[in-house]
Amino acid sequence: MPKQVDHEARRRKIAEALWQIASTRGLEGTRLRDVAAAANISLGQLQHYFTSKDEMLTFALGHIEELAEQRIRQRIAALPGEPAPYDVLRESLAEMLPLDEKSRTGNLVQIAYFVRAVHDEETRKKAQEGIPALRGFFASLLRAGQERGDVADGRDVEAEAMLLIGLVDGLTSYVLLDVLTPDAALALLDHHLSGLFSSPSAPATSSAP
Amino acid sequence: MPKQVDHEARRRKIAEALWQIASTRGLEGTRLRDVAAAANISLGQLQHYFTSKDEMLTFALGHIEELAEQRIRQRIAALPGEPAPYDVLRESLAEMLPLDEKSRTGNLVQIAYFVRAVHDEETRKKAQEGIPALRGFFASLLRAGQERGDVADGRDVEAEAMLLIGLVDGLTSYVLLDVLTPDAALALLDHHLSGLFSSPSAPATSSAP
Repeated sequence: MPKQVDHEARRRKIAEALWQIASTRGLEGTRLRDVAAAANISLGQLQHYFTSKDEMLTFALGHIEELAEQRIRQRIAALPGEPAPYDVLRESLAEMLPLDEKSRTGNLVQIAYFVRAVHDEETRKKAQEGIPALRGFFASLLRAGQERGDVADGRDVEAEAMLLIGLVDGLTSYVLLDVLTPDAALALLDHHLSGLFSSPSAPATSSAP
Repeated sequence: MPKQVDHEARRRKIAEALWQIASTRGLEGTRLRDVAAAANISLGQLQHYFTSKDEMLTFALGHIEELAEQRIRQRIAALPGEPAPYDVLRESLAEMLPLDEKSRTGNLVQIAYFVRAVHDEETRKKAQEGIPALRGFFASLLRAGQERGDVADGRDVEAEAMLLIGLVDGLTSYVLLDVLTPDAALALLDHHLSGLFSSPSAPATSSAP
């Protein structure tokens, strides 16, 4: 059993070394020998944990998405009391923006995967996997908002949920390009949410635009 | 004079060869010799037109943005009569989405530049240049919509303009990932616009969601 644990821990360590390189060079420019060096192991040892570059990339993508989900879940769990749909939605979306160095790196790695996914069908399938669940989660929060009277009844929650996902992606790009500061992106997100929620259950915690 | 024209025409031809390669391999994976081969010239001839890879990349980025602007202007010019702010805004945004093969390639090249821009300051400055003008253009259309009573007076047009730019960028990513069909992305855009324009001057020309 400890051996199995070590094996997984080592695979995660290698994934993190891969991210470090991919966040600056992209996935195509990432060579196995560089990942091995960044993980302080030999190329032969790396090949013991991953038999191919593709296997390593797939594992690393799964691991980064897991961590992103975990961060969202922790943020929601940290909300006081019984959080309103608005609060859960806002915390989830804010966590997806590159507001600190860690999530900036995560976003850069996801962009590296995105570039690969556009041309590589296997990566594309992997990249698509999480979207319906995320869209469904956001739609369910908007529906819960409607039931409380916080979101107008006429709103198409499925469309609004996908618009939110697209919006956060677009804002992320402009933060990474230094067109928007993290604070400005958060203020724009809050502005959009204030249009969706006619009476948010809690005041937004954002800073000024 | 004809020589000058030839020189510019050849530079544009080389830029198009570069896009062809960059749209599948990204800019980092694009070598000068491959661009020369795709443009049917020798590496020496290419170096006669561009003295460095950076000079070629900068020219090619400027040229692709010029073409994108031109396509938007042509689309607006093709609108019948005196187009309403809603129509001009909607045509501009629709032209930015990857709805056909040509604009798909254009978007892929812009993503290649985006990836470079995140790490390279010169490219980042270039990539940022067009945004304030685009944001100002969209804001002026929303303001014109307010003056006609099509857009609610209370709307923050500067914020809404930036949200539109972010939204189109995000929707573009999900079209390129095959998460959304071009028609679904256009329907989502129309859905968002219908929330902004309480009484659009012209019916949306989009297809069903």
